[in-house]
Amino acid sequence: MQLTQYTDYSLRVLIYLGRHQEKLATITEIAEFYRISRNHLVKVVHHLGQCGYIETLRGKNGGIRLARGPQDIQLGQLVRDTEPNFNLAECFDKEKNRCVIVRDCKLQSVLHQAKHNFLATLNNYTLADVLA
Amino acid sequence: MQLTQYTDYSLRVLIYLGRHQEKLATITEIAEFYRISRNHLVKVVHHLGQCGYIETLRGKNGGIRLARGPQDIQLGQLVRDTEPNFNLAECFDKEKNRCVIVRDCKLQSVLHQAKHNFLATLNNYTLADVLA
Repeated sequence: MQLTQYTDYSLRVLIYLGRHQEKLATITEIAEFYRISRNHLVKVVHHLGQCGYIETLRGKNGGIRLARGPQDIQLGQLVRDTEPNFNLAECFDKEKNRCVIVRDCKLQSVLHQAKHNFLATLNNYTLADVLA
Repeated sequence: MQLTQYTDYSLRVLIYLGRHQEKLATITEIAEFYRISRNHLVKVVHHLGQCGYIETLRGKNGGIRLARGPQDIQLGQLVRDTEPNFNLAECFDKEKNRCVIVRDCKLQSVLHQAKHNFLATLNNYTLADVLA
């Protein structure tokens, strides 16, 4: 069980911005700091903008910054926004499911409950809590 | 966030055996019931045997069956035994980690807590609870 690299990088971007709230940051600067692909970060930053976590100021001295205070970014909601899905088992995707016992199997509801508690635990924390 | 197909198939095998405790089952029969690859199931069944969940009776009329009662198989422990890892973020794997803020980042402990609550939720249930 893993989170995607996409979620990992999203968290890193927000942590970086949370630690440097006094200035505008650039994608290049964040990529160099973490020594990761700038191309990956472009997509991550674009999506974080669409979700309302960060904002972009254009122009010569432009850059990105948090669009809300770190205390207003719940980690469970963030992970929900960045993970492509939480399909713990095949039956979570009704269209792709081929498991023949799906109608009389109680496993799915147990897995849903575990997923819920995973995200609820993360929602007990905000970005502010994980900034050192 | 997904569990592996390997875990999914392990759960299906145990559910099948839990529903047919009156007899010995065969891998071929389980593969045909679920319409999944017999080759995959051979590995799954071998590993479930090594972990003490099922036992194999050899011979002409041999087959496999649960090695314990369904009420003695906790789902969290099972998932722990079948998932290759729970490396939610890169920093969970000390050898492969390249994240530069690992020493002063509080995210890992929050993710560990979420993982713990995920597995603890599953451990509130046994195989007996998910048999219809």
